[in-house]
Amino acid sequence: MPVLPELLAANERYAADFTKGDLPMPPGRQVSVLVCMDARLHPEKFLGLDEGDAHVIRNAGGRASDDALRSLIISYKLLGTREFVVIHHTDCGMLTFTNDQLRGMLRDDLNADASGIDFLPFSDLDESVRQDVQTIRSSPLIPDDITVTGFVFDVKSGRLREVS
Amino acid sequence: MPVLPELLAANERYAADFTKGDLPMPPGRQVSVLVCMDARLHPEKFLGLDEGDAHVIRNAGGRASDDALRSLIISYKLLGTREFVVIHHTDCGMLTFTNDQLRGMLRDDLNADASGIDFLPFSDLDESVRQDVQTIRSSPLIPDDITVTGFVFDVKSGRLREVS
Repeated sequence: MPVLPELLAANERYAADFTKGDLPMPPGRQVSVLVCMDARLHPEKFLGLDEGDAHVIRNAGGRASDDALRSLIISYKLLGTREFVVIHHTDCGMLTFTNDQLRGMLRDDLNADASGIDFLPFSDLDESVRQDVQTIRSSPLIPDDITVTGFVFDVKSGRLREVS
Repeated sequence: MPVLPELLAANERYAADFTKGDLPMPPGRQVSVLVCMDARLHPEKFLGLDEGDAHVIRNAGGRASDDALRSLIISYKLLGTREFVVIHHTDCGMLTFTNDQLRGMLRDDLNADASGIDFLPFSDLDESVRQDVQTIRSSPLIPDDITVTGFVFDVKSGRLREVS
């Protein structure tokens, strides 16, 4: 059973009560958060963000990939954010596989070549946060006066723990 | 005034009432959504998603970048999603600049070379959705039985319009 019709019905209900149609494009709280795509994490909820408050960038792992840097550059340079927050989490899928394993699955199941793709898995959660914070801080395309702080979200407690 | 202390205070309140600590890692509704990072869009809210329901991938534009494909592959192959939904939106920042303009700003302000970066701006909103849906559908690393549907979210009305 496709879930899309249910999502569209929920959107109809959201739109029926919608009162946020006049918000400006730049994030009101001038912050951008980079968070894992994990389904258990709802960053707007666990950070108390309202519509219009913050850019939310998400990918597998919450990694500071080239594409996350692209988004962060657009965020501060064109839309005025001044703080970046990086959030990984406990029990992350990225701790459960290696590049070779995933490439092997794609080769066996789809006869597809993923040898050129780094899926960015990691084996040390805190270290992955520190690495990604450092990648952002050291980018020549991001000025030093933007603060970058890294956290781990605990999926058991819903609580953030600062790492770097 | 940094906003981070306010976000952490909000997280304390969230954790104090947290009751979702036993959710499994795979998304319960087996869906993955790719959405723009724009602050006005809260996809969990406008799609009726609860904690644990869906992967949420977000970047500047909601583009099907290589990194979004990396995340989508991990989403279906390791965590069992079966439907992908792509969501761009009206009044998007990606409609307001060109690569050359942003590269020039970074050169002038930071003396930094961004000539190798495609920031993935677009000039036709509906066409950008169609392109990204097509990029995902045609990837040899994503099987044909995963459905991919594209939408535009209207920031004035809060309503989704199907494009492709």
